[in-house]
Amino acid sequence: MLIYKGGITSPKGFLANGIFSGIKKKEGRSVKDLAILFSQVPAICCGVFTTNKVIANPVRYSKEILKKNPRVRAIIVNSGNANSCTGERGYWDIKRIVKAASEGLGVSHDVVLAASTGPIGKFLPVELIINAMPSLIKGIARNGGDRFARGILTTDLVKKEIAVRIKIGKSNVTIGAVAKGSGMIHPHMATMLCFITTDANIKRALLKKALRGAVEQSFNKISVDADMSTNDLCLIMANGLAGNKVISCEDADYRKFCAALNFVTLELAKMIPRDGEGATKLIEVIVKNAKNSKDAKKVAVSVSNSNLVKTALFGNNPNFGRIASAVGASGAYLRTDRFDIYFSDTCVLKNGTTLGLPWEKLTKLIRGKDVKITVDLKVGKALFNMYTCDFSYDYVKINA
Amino acid sequence: MLIYKGGITSPKGFLANGIFSGIKKKEGRSVKDLAILFSQVPAICCGVFTTNKVIANPVRYSKEILKKNPRVRAIIVNSGNANSCTGERGYWDIKRIVKAASEGLGVSHDVVLAASTGPIGKFLPVELIINAMPSLIKGIARNGGDRFARGILTTDLVKKEIAVRIKIGKSNVTIGAVAKGSGMIHPHMATMLCFITTDANIKRALLKKALRGAVEQSFNKISVDADMSTNDLCLIMANGLAGNKVISCEDADYRKFCAALNFVTLELAKMIPRDGEGATKLIEVIVKNAKNSKDAKKVAVSVSNSNLVKTALFGNNPNFGRIASAVGASGAYLRTDRFDIYFSDTCVLKNGTTLGLPWEKLTKLIRGKDVKITVDLKVGKALFNMYTCDFSYDYVKINA
Repeated sequence: MLIYKGGITSPKGFLANGIFSGIKKKEGRSVKDLAILFSQVPAICCGVFTTNKVIANPVRYSKEILKKNPRVRAIIVNSGNANSCTGERGYWDIKRIVKAASEGLGVSHDVVLAASTGPIGKFLPVELIINAMPSLIKGIARNGGDRFARGILTTDLVKKEIAVRIKIGKSNVTIGAVAKGSGMIHPHMATMLCFITTDANIKRALLKKALRGAVEQSFNKISVDADMSTNDLCLIMANGLAGNKVISCEDADYRKFCAALNFVTLELAKMIPRDGEGATKLIEVIVKNAKNSKDAKKVAVSVSNSNLVKTALFGNNPNFGRIASAVGASGAYLRTDRFDIYFSDTCVLKNGTTLGLPWEKLTKLIRGKDVKITVDLKVGKALFNMYTCDFSYDYVKINA
Repeated sequence: MLIYKGGITSPKGFLANGIFSGIKKKEGRSVKDLAILFSQVPAICCGVFTTNKVIANPVRYSKEILKKNPRVRAIIVNSGNANSCTGERGYWDIKRIVKAASEGLGVSHDVVLAASTGPIGKFLPVELIINAMPSLIKGIARNGGDRFARGILTTDLVKKEIAVRIKIGKSNVTIGAVAKGSGMIHPHMATMLCFITTDANIKRALLKKALRGAVEQSFNKISVDADMSTNDLCLIMANGLAGNKVISCEDADYRKFCAALNFVTLELAKMIPRDGEGATKLIEVIVKNAKNSKDAKKVAVSVSNSNLVKTALFGNNPNFGRIASAVGASGAYLRTDRFDIYFSDTCVLKNGTTLGLPWEKLTKLIRGKDVKITVDLKVGKALFNMYTCDFSYDYVKINA
């Protein structure tokens, strides 16, 4: 597998663009708020969507389109406004925007999906978006992936892109992807916006299965602040232009494709807490030897979401007692006289009892930008790991 | 009911003291870390304890004593060290401390309870505590409630005390109480340390029932940061010195006693998020017309614990979309085209759709020190309310 600098326009036949339309208030040179992704040929498409019951209008709209059409041509995305809690008016706003986009692209309106991200509860400035549409579409290009990546950001500090290439038979197959998200990240489904493109030739049922698996081991394992948005989605488009023999069963080619897709989503997933609102550290929480996988996840979520653990790590305060407390509060089966806690590979709590290591030594173990916490429950064999970030002044500042 | 300035030494026959013993590092004039409560006659006692599976040694110890002895004489409390995750050594440390306390008081060692609060995972400086015991006991007095209240604080900015007086028959019955807690507050059981004294003459089974009810409608409805400690407990001692006819069934006297106890615990409970780590606002979250009470609680907990909601309120940012998102993420049954959100008495989201009120107007509704958020689900009749606080820079600072 070749990993290279690229994004959603790296696979064959995908064009993109991103511009400033006026949805966001201040125009800096690099501020963009409207983006479009276009496949030169119809691409099979599937998605994973937020499990929040309050779903934003674009999520509702895109789910409806995907029910009707397995193949789509384009996705129009805006940042700076979630179009959520906007009722029927918000739904019709999308229809108008999609109509303008499809007319500009010269495709049917029912092969265009929509996504939004930003504050909830405000109506979209539809006129601004429609006015910007001609220039958005005029600029779509093979090198527009970067502009798209910038167009979907909100509080993110950096754009998040990746591309990989694999061989399927004699064909080069490319997967490119872009994501946004730095707050409201929680392990229930896609947890942010992510768009994945590939020129692979693959059956839709298998693409769907591969996507679900990839999301499960990546985006469902990250947490920034335990909040889940109304707009989260992860969409994949496969246009078949690589010309490989179609992947039609779960054979070696399929597994190769899945491995590459898993790599792409996990790398993007880790970029999110690393760029978490105000984050200074990427923290991996590993839970070992739980009674069952549900328990392992419960403990990982409880530790990853503990504000007390996260603020301590921001302050380089090796307060493992807060981790122990989060373990105990998780509801998982636990032998309190048996569980161990590690910072990196150093055991700090053994059989539920402090080892009394010097504080300075502990501090060294968590001082870096990458922190690994392991909780070994020693009551079974189940394993779960999660990625989260620390919790700083800036998180409060950004969200206040 | 007469409410007056007082605390745990307001009821007849209770003495207390609080001193500095050296558990905490810096000695300011007002820093205290060791406290004792003493009843001049045996008092029936019962408690509600943390549901965290990692329970601290003092909690384990006090539960054991209460199983054996319905009547106790004293409670010894330290702050600055939780004596949690300290294994068998931590358990024996308590035995030594209790022995010193009981000898000093001239009572049997098995009528003395213990409680601790502070960082987890450090061994108690037992010698310091034992050395301080004579001066702690020498100072117990009728006016020592204030010193006790100071002796149990950790990151709290203010002490939390209250006393009320009621008539049971012709007797004056007094209830006094003290609490500590400003972080790690979450609605599972007592969520902090609370000690309640009363001179009421009441059967233990009824006292237990009254305490459970009082905790349920007060401490189980507050949340500061969704963390639950290993040390939480709420203990009540009733020594009967008021001389009232014993409360032995659920009659009018019992209901009067319960009403007074409920008032005491709710007032203390509200003091906790008001003094929450870094808090600037007390926020009441009211969930109305949920399908059932479990759902009502789910929504209240989800909104109360949302960091995004809490940081927004700190910044006087009336971002009701974050509330809508927390409602949707709660898992409760929801008609997304039907629920309403109110700031104070002003509806801001109607039937799941923004009313588009001007931002300046919304800001005014949440600018004060007391904020009321109502979520009306309109799918049933269940109601639940909770108290929480906003989330500021100082929360991060205190915990880093």
